[in-house]
Amino acid sequence: MSEPATSLAEAREADAERRQGIVDVDVHPVPSSVDEIRERMPMPFRDRYQGERRSFFNNPVHGSRLDAVPPDGGPKGSDPEFMRRQLIDEYGVAYAILVSRTFCNIHPDPDYAAAIATAFNEWLVEVWLTEHNHDGAFKGSITIAQQDPARAVEEIERWAGHEHIVQVTMDSGARMPFGQRYYYPIYEACERHGLPLSVHPGTEGMGINHQPTPGYPTHYIEWHCAMSLAFQAHLISILTEGVFERYPGLRLVLVEGGVAWLAPLLWRLDSYWKALRSEVPWLRKPPSEYVADHVRLGTQPLERPDDDAQLLQLMEMMDAKRVLMFSSDYPHWDFDSPARAFPRLDDDVREAIFSTNARELYQLNQ
Amino acid sequence: MSEPATSLAEAREADAERRQGIVDVDVHPVPSSVDEIRERMPMPFRDRYQGERRSFFNNPVHGSRLDAVPPDGGPKGSDPEFMRRQLIDEYGVAYAILVSRTFCNIHPDPDYAAAIATAFNEWLVEVWLTEHNHDGAFKGSITIAQQDPARAVEEIERWAGHEHIVQVTMDSGARMPFGQRYYYPIYEACERHGLPLSVHPGTEGMGINHQPTPGYPTHYIEWHCAMSLAFQAHLISILTEGVFERYPGLRLVLVEGGVAWLAPLLWRLDSYWKALRSEVPWLRKPPSEYVADHVRLGTQPLERPDDDAQLLQLMEMMDAKRVLMFSSDYPHWDFDSPARAFPRLDDDVREAIFSTNARELYQLNQ
Repeated sequence: MSEPATSLAEAREADAERRQGIVDVDVHPVPSSVDEIRERMPMPFRDRYQGERRSFFNNPVHGSRLDAVPPDGGPKGSDPEFMRRQLIDEYGVAYAILVSRTFCNIHPDPDYAAAIATAFNEWLVEVWLTEHNHDGAFKGSITIAQQDPARAVEEIERWAGHEHIVQVTMDSGARMPFGQRYYYPIYEACERHGLPLSVHPGTEGMGINHQPTPGYPTHYIEWHCAMSLAFQAHLISILTEGVFERYPGLRLVLVEGGVAWLAPLLWRLDSYWKALRSEVPWLRKPPSEYVADHVRLGTQPLERPDDDAQLLQLMEMMDAKRVLMFSSDYPHWDFDSPARAFPRLDDDVREAIFSTNARELYQLNQ
Repeated sequence: MSEPATSLAEAREADAERRQGIVDVDVHPVPSSVDEIRERMPMPFRDRYQGERRSFFNNPVHGSRLDAVPPDGGPKGSDPEFMRRQLIDEYGVAYAILVSRTFCNIHPDPDYAAAIATAFNEWLVEVWLTEHNHDGAFKGSITIAQQDPARAVEEIERWAGHEHIVQVTMDSGARMPFGQRYYYPIYEACERHGLPLSVHPGTEGMGINHQPTPGYPTHYIEWHCAMSLAFQAHLISILTEGVFERYPGLRLVLVEGGVAWLAPLLWRLDSYWKALRSEVPWLRKPPSEYVADHVRLGTQPLERPDDDAQLLQLMEMMDAKRVLMFSSDYPHWDFDSPARAFPRLDDDVREAIFSTNARELYQLNQ
């Protein structure tokens, strides 16, 4: 799985630490330069690619932690060894699940989008999962461009057997809700390879994708806050369309969309299902039960009220011990510290959220 | 205010009952026929109007309570005396706040839309607020078409002085979020006349309006569940754009969008405000505090979990005693009964939600 340790004793020690450490399910490696991606793209896309994002909405303060600049320079999040020091060593992280931010799903051209995804995947595997992964702490996500599901399946097939690839990822910015049949080849491939599908926000309203609001939002704070609404819309769609009846082995991971909305949304959806189930006869149980069996949520950005007791109550309502997995979003501006994001949790709840749930889902060292 | 009672004793008795009774802030009167509206429209709109809704999404079972058919026939909700028996007498409702479902805001033609709104307003005032309002139990909402804010202001001016008009109403289906400056003439007029603005869902994705999801939803259950997402998007927009700083006298009423999402959303928004307030310097306090001062929510459809204690906890989190007002949505299919919608509440909370909050907001017999 990783390069051999220098002695059996060292290997056992490393293994014991990994069993106890945190799993962080949303960590962002960043290319040292656009060229790192561009050089892995075929023509004519190599000439075209500028790392473009095309959003009106950028963080007005700073997009990443100011202290995340690597000591030898380069973009924040671009130095694997510095990330190891600042995240993995600092907080006792056993595994960091790496998710590339490619912005590939904003483009009208599906070939260009797929070329971006492929180049990022090659870069991630070569640089982060091989060259700089001596301890096996970095686990990777296959980025797919949803514009061409058949091509996305090919990308999944290409990487699915890699020892450090643990999931597929795509952005939540979309032209249609994720429960629709357009996406089913992707879900089928994820199920077939036992790879969870992680959905990440950030391309809402960019390029070809719909806004998360009814029409254009005005400010970054509005756009960013509304990302969780797009997540809820996709989840409603996936649940009502019966995706988990069709693909019972599919596991869905929602990262960076917040978590506090989960219980209220499921109360609403369950109550509608009771009244309107004749419309969706393929559902054999209340929507909330599919969530418990098939959906996990990354905790960041955790909605933290003034009163810790209220957060703990809400966590009980959403069955947090079962559905949450800790994520930090390192190195981004709204990083959640493993040490401070949560109030004091019961040991079993903390262990589930910070370690066990992710280890089970991703079949990591358990 | 209402026609004189036949004796002073009777008048006092009626007054005492109204002081104690429930206020229901979302009740739907329905025309006996399309002609009731059409005959109040000028040409060429009179020829054009068919009561059209143009939605792909209709309740697959039934849109209104099956038992709401008036004994003498006609559409459900069209007989004021039967509504009095089935809602007002049955549950001890002192005041029913009537909201017409006009669907006027789906049309590209602003003159046609305004003609529909005006005809409904004339019909409501003539039939429900005058002819059939001997006891003053019916209070009305001025419907406006948001396609032409200047024309909407004229409509508000026309009716604002009417003794039984207590608010303005518009649909949440929209082409842009409600915090944007396009809508400000409407807010200015509401503030100037001391009329709360009630926002009602149901035209999302119809005609010119955006869907409540990223792209078209598939089923009614999905579309209907996602309505509450559109409400949240509008509220984020109104709060971040500083509408309540610009119009400090404005009061906003969100009906039929659910309520359980409120606290989680405000936790999220408050935390973003702490980090990003430099982008919205006009906000002088956390967004949640504007909600407490300016926003009220109709309770229906109340999200009811299996565990009553969880609902009570969530109500505490949202400061339900302050922000909620009971609504039944009579005669629609998902009617919430005043007797059964809530678990057992403390007396002061119940009184606030079922009566006091609405009486204060609408300046009703207190």
